[in-house]
Amino acid sequence: MTTKQRVVIIGAGFAGLKAARTLANTEVDILLIDRNNYHTFTPLLYQVATCGLHPSDVAYPIRSIFSGTKNVHFLLGEVTDINTEEQFVIVDADTGEERQESYDYLFMAAGSTTNWFGNDQIKQNSFGLRDLSDAVALRHHILKLFEKAAWTEDKAERDALLTFVVVGGGPTGLETAGALYELYNHVLTKEYSNGIQFKARVILLEAMDSLLGPYPKKLQNSAKEQLDSIGVEVYTSAFVDEVKFKGIKLKDGRSFNTYTIVWATGVVGSPLAQMLNVELAKGGRIPVEETMQVKGVDKVYAAGDTVYLEDPNGDPYPGLIPVAQQQGTLVAQNILRDIRGAAKETFVYGDRGSMATIGRRRAVAWVYNRIQLTGFLAWIAWLLLHLVALLGMRNRILVFVNWIWDYFFYDRSVRLIIEGAEDKIRHPELFDSDYEHDHIEDVA
Amino acid sequence: MTTKQRVVIIGAGFAGLKAARTLANTEVDILLIDRNNYHTFTPLLYQVATCGLHPSDVAYPIRSIFSGTKNVHFLLGEVTDINTEEQFVIVDADTGEERQESYDYLFMAAGSTTNWFGNDQIKQNSFGLRDLSDAVALRHHILKLFEKAAWTEDKAERDALLTFVVVGGGPTGLETAGALYELYNHVLTKEYSNGIQFKARVILLEAMDSLLGPYPKKLQNSAKEQLDSIGVEVYTSAFVDEVKFKGIKLKDGRSFNTYTIVWATGVVGSPLAQMLNVELAKGGRIPVEETMQVKGVDKVYAAGDTVYLEDPNGDPYPGLIPVAQQQGTLVAQNILRDIRGAAKETFVYGDRGSMATIGRRRAVAWVYNRIQLTGFLAWIAWLLLHLVALLGMRNRILVFVNWIWDYFFYDRSVRLIIEGAEDKIRHPELFDSDYEHDHIEDVA
Repeated sequence: MTTKQRVVIIGAGFAGLKAARTLANTEVDILLIDRNNYHTFTPLLYQVATCGLHPSDVAYPIRSIFSGTKNVHFLLGEVTDINTEEQFVIVDADTGEERQESYDYLFMAAGSTTNWFGNDQIKQNSFGLRDLSDAVALRHHILKLFEKAAWTEDKAERDALLTFVVVGGGPTGLETAGALYELYNHVLTKEYSNGIQFKARVILLEAMDSLLGPYPKKLQNSAKEQLDSIGVEVYTSAFVDEVKFKGIKLKDGRSFNTYTIVWATGVVGSPLAQMLNVELAKGGRIPVEETMQVKGVDKVYAAGDTVYLEDPNGDPYPGLIPVAQQQGTLVAQNILRDIRGAAKETFVYGDRGSMATIGRRRAVAWVYNRIQLTGFLAWIAWLLLHLVALLGMRNRILVFVNWIWDYFFYDRSVRLIIEGAEDKIRHPELFDSDYEHDHIEDVA
Repeated sequence: MTTKQRVVIIGAGFAGLKAARTLANTEVDILLIDRNNYHTFTPLLYQVATCGLHPSDVAYPIRSIFSGTKNVHFLLGEVTDINTEEQFVIVDADTGEERQESYDYLFMAAGSTTNWFGNDQIKQNSFGLRDLSDAVALRHHILKLFEKAAWTEDKAERDALLTFVVVGGGPTGLETAGALYELYNHVLTKEYSNGIQFKARVILLEAMDSLLGPYPKKLQNSAKEQLDSIGVEVYTSAFVDEVKFKGIKLKDGRSFNTYTIVWATGVVGSPLAQMLNVELAKGGRIPVEETMQVKGVDKVYAAGDTVYLEDPNGDPYPGLIPVAQQQGTLVAQNILRDIRGAAKETFVYGDRGSMATIGRRRAVAWVYNRIQLTGFLAWIAWLLLHLVALLGMRNRILVFVNWIWDYFFYDRSVRLIIEGAEDKIRHPELFDSDYEHDHIEDVA
């Protein structure tokens, strides 16, 4: 009997998770590494940022998913190096040590990160919306601005505090802008006005001449109309020139005074991609074969947002969840095929379409890239799909209760500024591999 | 027509909130100040710390409570000084400025804080459990210790990581110890064992010779038996001698290696009490008349955990929610009586008893200080009372769903380590009155 082959998976996003689930209870041994102890349902992050959902409604503990699965092990930590010659990865583990973990197969599923266009000015003054801590930070920021605005008598300053700019006209941008406007319009305006009349603005900026780039014209127009109808100010062909502490300036000279810029212009591949020492494709993405093997690197696979792979028309596959999931499954199957001596298969995308919600009873959906839905019907389709796609029945129930409640009562429940927990952590040395443990006193 | 009298309330806990609600829509103007934007239902904090509930399940936005109430204004910030001669308070407001707010009547409802016995060793190495950030910090810590233990091969070190010590045999201590044990026993043990056999210990230390000090003997004994039956190790007459980075030592020489000490030995009055320049009573509490007026300070009232007032038997009233609520209501009524020229009334406590839960189907209850309940019946009574006492119907529904789920599936859902949000806040200068604003660049 040979020893088990060891598959190391970097990232418990949609691709990594699908692969781990496919490999669970097979003949391999799996080490799943993530810097969070949970999987994040990213499409609903904007609802966490806008006080609609609890952070844990859109997250699921990774260990819970593999509870009772003996061949999946989980390691909390950040990968700091990859050696593809000797086949190991280095992990700065949250266990307070640097671990070297060897692999027979490596699956790079590290996802993507906000595209700041290498511009520090943007990065320092804008909010990303890629993970739970981004969403919580944005929620705190919005609530604190409203608190400040309630006590600000200077009208120009108050207007700046209550101007929210979202950059990027893709689904994330649309959804965030719509939800921000509803948060303000349905909830905060009633509660924060200390006698002063409140007026918040939500501005959506898109550099292209239409929203929702890859969607059909009808849906693009409908999205714009639906945003207009709720009160979001949409500017297309709007190139950002400069971002400052207070405000954003466009190339055409227009500017908006604001302290809140949500940067949703798209993503680039995870910086971990650079550790593979291959020449990266556009957007810092890893070039892969159609079998999802990294080009030129033996035993290493990659999938999801972190890879560059072209579809039969020569366009790169988009950074969508179904793409990541289907590629993740294929990676697992191809690793098993390789071990079992079978021929690897190539990626064929089963495209079920895409959708974006805009707010209460408003959405656009492009089902199977054929059926075009707008308005209430698209919104219902969006709701159902996202409820089903959430991991865990309890999360589904809780999210459903929250949505029903918010719908009927025009409410948003999670309006808490909870800060200071990080100052209250004791013994941080235990979890930090850089820390000098010598001083630790023992009671004995 | 005279101008409205202004009542400033410090603290939106149980006393402050009751007073604000009683004064809402009367002839006074109210300024409610709190350092959080939410009211906390403190009796369930231990469930937040042990992954059972979301932080926002046990908190309620203050502005929401007074939505549509025109005479209640809310200010987020910390009171840094009180001038009882000239009748104003200084607030380090989260609006980024220091505000001076004058009052006609001041209600000090600043609550209490963990009693560290002036011992820095204890304070630096233990967790308090008094507010939401305490609970979130403890949750993160527990989960991180389990992650570390799962990769720790040294048995002695692993045992230390998995030893949880709760100091204090009052309701908070009992409830925390019971919930910790169930979290470990029902959930974490199954998911964290990477093939290694796990054994966690939960130890409850109490300096007196019995748990639940003021309760009748029968309930004290029952609480001890119920804790024993689930596996919590209870030590009474256990005086803490020393607390170190790793471990806790008792006066009798016994010691436990641990990285987790929850300090639940009781509370002292809020440090804000010192700003009144009166001689404080035992535990840093403000001495008050039976009308809840602060002794010797005109126009200033105080109530709840922050005051010292004796009952007809000469014992101080305990730090319980009903005491705070009833006193808060009386303060509001007495302020109105004073304005209206009526005679002030004195505090009469309507005591409905007290209770403590120990875990799944286990509790003790002392209803109206007459009927003694233990076990399942006490647990049902505890559940119902706490559901009803929660603020907001949505929170009741969500907590109910969570409890039902956890009961039937032996689960705990909120097992997320979400850190880093505080690093991602942009423009912190906006909310900090100490910060130099000069450098702020405007886009215009």
